[in-house]
Amino acid sequence: MERELTIVVDGMGGDNAPACNIEGVVNALNEREGFRIIMTGDEEALMQGLSSYRYPKERLTIRPTTQVIAMAEPPVSAIHGKKDSSIVVGMGLVRKGEADAFVSAGSTGAVLVGGQLLVGRLKGVHRPPLACIIPTEKGMTCVVDCGANVDARPEWLIQFARMGSVYVENMLGIKAPTVGLLNIGAEEEKGNALVKETMPQLKACPDIHFTGSVEARDVPSGAVDIVVTDAFSGNVLLKMYEGTASALLHIIKKTLKSSVKTMIGGALIQGALKETLKRYDASNYGGAPLLGLKGLVVKAHGSSSAAEICTSIFQCLEFSEKDINGKIRRALEDAAVKAEA
Amino acid sequence: MERELTIVVDGMGGDNAPACNIEGVVNALNEREGFRIIMTGDEEALMQGLSSYRYPKERLTIRPTTQVIAMAEPPVSAIHGKKDSSIVVGMGLVRKGEADAFVSAGSTGAVLVGGQLLVGRLKGVHRPPLACIIPTEKGMTCVVDCGANVDARPEWLIQFARMGSVYVENMLGIKAPTVGLLNIGAEEEKGNALVKETMPQLKACPDIHFTGSVEARDVPSGAVDIVVTDAFSGNVLLKMYEGTASALLHIIKKTLKSSVKTMIGGALIQGALKETLKRYDASNYGGAPLLGLKGLVVKAHGSSSAAEICTSIFQCLEFSEKDINGKIRRALEDAAVKAEA
Repeated sequence: MERELTIVVDGMGGDNAPACNIEGVVNALNEREGFRIIMTGDEEALMQGLSSYRYPKERLTIRPTTQVIAMAEPPVSAIHGKKDSSIVVGMGLVRKGEADAFVSAGSTGAVLVGGQLLVGRLKGVHRPPLACIIPTEKGMTCVVDCGANVDARPEWLIQFARMGSVYVENMLGIKAPTVGLLNIGAEEEKGNALVKETMPQLKACPDIHFTGSVEARDVPSGAVDIVVTDAFSGNVLLKMYEGTASALLHIIKKTLKSSVKTMIGGALIQGALKETLKRYDASNYGGAPLLGLKGLVVKAHGSSSAAEICTSIFQCLEFSEKDINGKIRRALEDAAVKAEA
Repeated sequence: MERELTIVVDGMGGDNAPACNIEGVVNALNEREGFRIIMTGDEEALMQGLSSYRYPKERLTIRPTTQVIAMAEPPVSAIHGKKDSSIVVGMGLVRKGEADAFVSAGSTGAVLVGGQLLVGRLKGVHRPPLACIIPTEKGMTCVVDCGANVDARPEWLIQFARMGSVYVENMLGIKAPTVGLLNIGAEEEKGNALVKETMPQLKACPDIHFTGSVEARDVPSGAVDIVVTDAFSGNVLLKMYEGTASALLHIIKKTLKSSVKTMIGGALIQGALKETLKRYDASNYGGAPLLGLKGLVVKAHGSSSAAEICTSIFQCLEFSEKDINGKIRRALEDAAVKAEA
């Protein structure tokens, strides 16, 4: 008998836990059918939080845990030491096949380390990267790796490109998605050692729609569907995107309040501007999956709202229904066969 | 007899050369006194461009050159091969002491390589970084290195911090400027190998006001006065800043044109918004100097307008008048003495 699609949600991870985690779970259960949720965390806190909501109770189980991994804890020792934490127990359920996916807004480091050590990599995967979707002028772009593997090697980046292509083609519905290698210029001789070594190898992959270097300046306009990079540069890219947008909107808001004239003007444009900027709201994009694991692990923002937790759960459903992991496995196998031939 | 302060301007470098270079030079000469300019480049083109302007002719010399280094040329061979290019001849004038500074909007690679090979490093300088000023919510922040030295080493980053501190303190007038090391998290264990190795060394420098890791997300709000990083991440940071701001303003402008209501609103806020965003105009900040050379070399944007060329010239005047190079030399000597003690 096939078990129902099951998502584990870390009840304790994130700046707004457990309140937003609970609200996100409740909303997901009320909005869609065909799956169940297990929440890991402090039983009393979760029960109390849930008591004020109406939701299909038969689809939610609480798996009590007694420990929490804090944001700043060294990840490896936390994963080894806190066996009864919401993260370790949650990932354990995925490893044992009792659940399909794990969502956490908790410590990024612990989620990354746990994903590799507890859930485990698909055969042949060097390193599982975090794949993050950002909104662009044209639509959406996937940055891979946006936070997992600093000091990367060329063969890792090749796999990031391959796994990212499967993810984007199936989850975003972009046929033959284009891949750019993040670089600091368009010319051939530009780049650090990693980029220079990776460039010809990416060019030689017939299954990857590689378009060459992409400069950070061209990412927000949507120059490529997938940006491939090491996690350090990828994270700088992502965080600079958030930081610049936030700072710019902040000064524009301040300007709108600077005089009666601009306040009237601001009132007239407010509705349309909100509508436009909605597309730039992180909660629409859910979290970032670690690609290349045997099960699905999704890292949601530390500052996740209920809406973002809910979107991350829906993302897990789609990821599982579309069998992204199976497709990644086959893509890697095909590439390995071709490389040997 | 002391010769007058002399700035060499590359007449042929940049997307808008020579027209904008000529206009920028003319404006600089007309606006301020106490310096002279040498333009390198095609004599006929420069003479013809200049013929439509009024300016103090006795303060401008044309140094005819017959070659141009193109944007995409491999820099090292270009510097070695094109001895009569506007860049090589211009830098030669600085090396020979016939000029104090060289400004180019041409090939970044050629300017960087030429700076090191032709102008030469100050004693003890490992690698001269590009120091770029970006506007923030609080004021201004200097990113060093924003484009010269990829695959950097810890001891280079220490010098970037030290030279950047001298530059920011004297050019931006910020006493005891704070220095952050670009990182992908605030926790101690975060970062790539370079960051982890550099962190304790920066902490141990009594002359640097080091505040620890700075995340890209906090740069646009002005979290630190100086961001220290390798040139790859620094360039990603800088270009993402430009790209995000440009994409965001683009979609806001589109929104303002979406209906009669928003058009009226847009008209009411236009003036104030322009005033606010003026501070974010690259032409106000001039180019990026290469710190740690025996003479001054300033790289202006490839897309430099006349205003940016003019600002870059004024930047050279200030840099020379304030003897930034002398101060950098002394800061490095002091640090070396203390390290030995």
